[in-house]
Amino acid sequence: MAKDLDQLCVNTIRFLAADAVEQARSGHPGMPMGMADVAYVLWSQFLKHSPMHPSWIDRDRFVLSAGHGCMLLYSMLYLTGYDLPLEELKRFRQWESKTAGHPEYGAAPGIETSTGPLGQGFANGVGMALATRLLATRYNRPGHTIVDHRIYAIVSDGDLMEGIASEAASLAGHLGLSEIIYLYDDNRITIEGSTSLAFTEDVAARFRAYGWFVQEVDAYDRPAVAAAIRAAQGETERPSLIKVHSHIGYGAPHAQDTAEVHGAPLGEQELNAAKQALGWPTEPRFYVPEAALTHLRQAIARGQQAEREWEARFQAYATAYPDLVAEFTQRMQGELPAGWDADLPAFADTSKPLATRRASGQVIGALSAKIPALIGGSADLAPSTSTLVKGAGDVGKGAFGSRNLHFGVREHAMGGILNGMALHGGFIPYGATFMVFSDYMRPSIRLAAIMGTHVIYVFTHDSVGLGEDGPTHQPIEHLAALRAIPRLTLLRPADATETTEAWKVAITHKGPVALLLTRQDVDVLDRKVLAPASGLAKGAYVLVDAASGKPDVILIASGSEVQVALAARATLAEQGVRARVVSMPSWELFEQQPQAYRDGVLLPAVTARLAVEAGVRMGWERYVGPQGDVVSIERYGASAPYKVIWEKLGFTGPAVAQRALKLLGR
Amino acid sequence: MAKDLDQLCVNTIRFLAADAVEQARSGHPGMPMGMADVAYVLWSQFLKHSPMHPSWIDRDRFVLSAGHGCMLLYSMLYLTGYDLPLEELKRFRQWESKTAGHPEYGAAPGIETSTGPLGQGFANGVGMALATRLLATRYNRPGHTIVDHRIYAIVSDGDLMEGIASEAASLAGHLGLSEIIYLYDDNRITIEGSTSLAFTEDVAARFRAYGWFVQEVDAYDRPAVAAAIRAAQGETERPSLIKVHSHIGYGAPHAQDTAEVHGAPLGEQELNAAKQALGWPTEPRFYVPEAALTHLRQAIARGQQAEREWEARFQAYATAYPDLVAEFTQRMQGELPAGWDADLPAFADTSKPLATRRASGQVIGALSAKIPALIGGSADLAPSTSTLVKGAGDVGKGAFGSRNLHFGVREHAMGGILNGMALHGGFIPYGATFMVFSDYMRPSIRLAAIMGTHVIYVFTHDSVGLGEDGPTHQPIEHLAALRAIPRLTLLRPADATETTEAWKVAITHKGPVALLLTRQDVDVLDRKVLAPASGLAKGAYVLVDAASGKPDVILIASGSEVQVALAARATLAEQGVRARVVSMPSWELFEQQPQAYRDGVLLPAVTARLAVEAGVRMGWERYVGPQGDVVSIERYGASAPYKVIWEKLGFTGPAVAQRALKLLGR
Repeated sequence: MAKDLDQLCVNTIRFLAADAVEQARSGHPGMPMGMADVAYVLWSQFLKHSPMHPSWIDRDRFVLSAGHGCMLLYSMLYLTGYDLPLEELKRFRQWESKTAGHPEYGAAPGIETSTGPLGQGFANGVGMALATRLLATRYNRPGHTIVDHRIYAIVSDGDLMEGIASEAASLAGHLGLSEIIYLYDDNRITIEGSTSLAFTEDVAARFRAYGWFVQEVDAYDRPAVAAAIRAAQGETERPSLIKVHSHIGYGAPHAQDTAEVHGAPLGEQELNAAKQALGWPTEPRFYVPEAALTHLRQAIARGQQAEREWEARFQAYATAYPDLVAEFTQRMQGELPAGWDADLPAFADTSKPLATRRASGQVIGALSAKIPALIGGSADLAPSTSTLVKGAGDVGKGAFGSRNLHFGVREHAMGGILNGMALHGGFIPYGATFMVFSDYMRPSIRLAAIMGTHVIYVFTHDSVGLGEDGPTHQPIEHLAALRAIPRLTLLRPADATETTEAWKVAITHKGPVALLLTRQDVDVLDRKVLAPASGLAKGAYVLVDAASGKPDVILIASGSEVQVALAARATLAEQGVRARVVSMPSWELFEQQPQAYRDGVLLPAVTARLAVEAGVRMGWERYVGPQGDVVSIERYGASAPYKVIWEKLGFTGPAVAQRALKLLGR
Repeated sequence: MAKDLDQLCVNTIRFLAADAVEQARSGHPGMPMGMADVAYVLWSQFLKHSPMHPSWIDRDRFVLSAGHGCMLLYSMLYLTGYDLPLEELKRFRQWESKTAGHPEYGAAPGIETSTGPLGQGFANGVGMALATRLLATRYNRPGHTIVDHRIYAIVSDGDLMEGIASEAASLAGHLGLSEIIYLYDDNRITIEGSTSLAFTEDVAARFRAYGWFVQEVDAYDRPAVAAAIRAAQGETERPSLIKVHSHIGYGAPHAQDTAEVHGAPLGEQELNAAKQALGWPTEPRFYVPEAALTHLRQAIARGQQAEREWEARFQAYATAYPDLVAEFTQRMQGELPAGWDADLPAFADTSKPLATRRASGQVIGALSAKIPALIGGSADLAPSTSTLVKGAGDVGKGAFGSRNLHFGVREHAMGGILNGMALHGGFIPYGATFMVFSDYMRPSIRLAAIMGTHVIYVFTHDSVGLGEDGPTHQPIEHLAALRAIPRLTLLRPADATETTEAWKVAITHKGPVALLLTRQDVDVLDRKVLAPASGLAKGAYVLVDAASGKPDVILIASGSEVQVALAARATLAEQGVRARVVSMPSWELFEQQPQAYRDGVLLPAVTARLAVEAGVRMGWERYVGPQGDVVSIERYGASAPYKVIWEKLGFTGPAVAQRALKLLGR
């Protein structure tokens, strides 16, 4: 009877998914049908979650890295009692339904991350596990275990082929993140056909080489699946991969084990045949037997019980460790400690130029001392990106009380892990690399922007001004390419002082922020004669106006090019030309200002406008207008000392002044 | 004596590199110093190359995937007699020298690919090996071996941490590309410190899991290194990884085995100490003993001899197989067969709409039949991207006479492999995925643009018009982000007919081209009433003018939005508004037209201009001007049937007409 009930539940899950895809005439029925048994075992026996309180801090996280199989997730959420009614499953893939074509974070409760782009969920889960371990190490005390959860995921062949997953797996093994229990849907089918077409590596051996605990089970031997999960739970040194031998489209008499069932509805005939084969009524669609629903919805009571137990533990902990609880609670609520920005470097000494990456390093040090949630590192460029916090230790096996993360040369995994840490909660994670290598992690940046995760990218070496490393290392199109990403905020401070302001914005901003910093030294601008750097928060501000307040020309620049614009202004002044200099560290923040402010900065009457930026001009037309121009770079860079490059490419005061004069017809 | 001479050569290589870095006060001395012995063994005993004829077809390819160690490569090129004088080594990292900070393809003879961004060279080499195998299979005949070379590379810890290398390694193992012999510089040091900080996986076991033949040797046991390379040459089923235990900065008494020696000059004191430790004169800098030079320059004679032997074989082959030789020669010279574009689909039937990806699939089929060099595939999306050539077979072990490549879910490796195939010569490679996943391969696209490799990207599902898959799969910023890449040419055809024209451009263009194609059906435009699709070659053209030739408004659109613009034009006509519709499939091609042509398309007098494109507006300001506007998308997409999305986001004839009227103040 118990077995019959189990089977009833499994088939409910399986056919809810298949029916929804059929109704939408679009979607991926194969994975949910194949993995229904595994999902059932996991959710009914192991997953610690509270459907009535999806954001309970100590819940296990479930990541559907194989996001195309989202109907499996939606079925589980509905059946276990989340606020996702059956009606929404019937509106699968329709406008503004909660059941999008791939899991969208925020669209429905219980979706822990947006997945679909393969490999991302895998890396997100590693970030969540790392977050768990870091929090557990900092806050748990003997007899007081308040952070104690695991990260489960279903991952696919496609996930494991993606480089980001390889990177994340290697790092997870290195760190020994035994919180991770991933179920690998080994169905031997990809979109193009059999995995034998392109994927014949020994996955188990590969993961063992990464330092993982690997098991293999049959997807439909539910006791064996349960035993494997239990063994994985008992493993304390290594992340777990459970290789599940499954059949895509399980039960469909003709479609099972074919590529066709991966990404297209079964069709009515085959769907009915599958139902008949598994003893399921062909009608009604979306059939949910009461017994199955009742059984699966025990998750609600189980979750409430688990939460009550946790609450009790938490109360005891609060009594014993009031300070820790205060800090923990603040972190998990995403609040900042009082005085977090009290002791930031002011950079009052304007006599010595300073690379903004170096200024940033000082700010990170000051912020880290105040904000325990601020944790990050670099993709093996910490000395260059100035992201190492002195005295804070290196995170590693047995050293999860440390603060410096070492991602290795794994930019993409870094991007995915940052998202996972932010999604987990309790962290403002940052990750650093050279700006040109933002390309390596771009898919993760996009997902950060879609989800609105609060992550901070520290991208240094932000122009040809990095010098000798040459074209492959010099960003040219990257400012434009990053600006193109909706909801990503860029901050390119002009000097050390603006760098402090940029970090303040980055810490308080909602959503992802990219800091763009120089390798080379830049002047620390003299704020006694120039406008205060706090103007950065408005995206652009008048750094210095024409003496008369009536400029002939407006020079607009960002980052290290601001000092070039200032030099050009001086040259122009000698020739009687009045120039305003606008520092414009952030288009995105500027666009959010009222029109009056924007018109005050970029005076509509002054059409002679020259932007100065060491990258492609794309998009600058918006600000310089048809009578304006851009001192830009429309080629790749060069390997040479940076001052030579600046000179050759026209980024000097005199050269920019010349361009301004040309604009004025002089 | 021989041993002394070997040591003399090795130290010549070692200190040439260290001296150049010292002179430039910038660069990476550690790797060349550590790997000088290995490079010496490889280049003097194994590498088949002809310094006086660097483009000899049957040469082995040497890839320095660890591109930061470029002084090792420059030293070898100079010492073995390439046209790279010592003077250029002294100008390391200076403006317009041939010795850039990382190897730049084309800057000096013998540089097979631009490297530096880690993992790329690894994947390029896999592409070169695949190219070799495909050519050997098609052209070699019993007793006539004209394609018979290998791909050697030096790869670093950083390379092997990068996801792209993991992807490429898995595919190389799957295909059994035994042409590959990679020397892994296992020096246990990365920029942040010891590899123990982040990289403790069992690399050898991982590569065995991929199906590689893995050996381990000491970097300074030159006979052992030679024996390992010889064993790798004897392996015919698997690619080879030779794990070389080395010491970064070998010989420097204090800097050896430290992270500091990776990326900074030794400093005069340490450099001199290293020279003394290895019995090398501290002065003069750039010391090249005559005996070493003479010995190493035997490479010239060896290369000429090898080439002569090959020429003799080639002559015999030419006599035996004149047709094959003609085809082979044409391919290797990058020429197209006569009549290659004779039988392309014309799509005369305008009654049935057709997705441009489907039109593209037909064109690929026609082109493949004529152009043997055109070979490609998809990153596990062939059925969706329409890139499978029917009847051409799947490339795999024992099936290298086939035409369809299967990259697996490995977009980044695909990008690197395409570059490698193009660099090898004999191929116009294409690779396909969904446009949104162009992000996954962006670093390789950038390198294609920097190097100017002739590769073709087939990016389908090019807008929210893909429908139900939702935001994670819908490009929004990608047109802008790809356009931002200098020297990359985008082609976004409006219909099936323009798709044929786009492929003609893609085939003949010099440099990388991205085709952007719809998932959804679009009208096949009636060219009897509209301008011919050949206008695509100019980037933009007047598809249909205002009846009077004096438009009130110019509607500019690309891809599937062209038919929306045409519908808007009809709506406007009903209201007495005269609209010109410009199809603008390529900004890049349009920018290359004379001003007069451009002004003829976008009449300067008509300032009411409305662009219609399903992506961010960024950059369109250039064409619509300050009085113009853009029907764009400044948010992420949505999961719903595509017609609903078009409607909701304003991409319908009436909605666009409304925007045009607003522009005209009506």
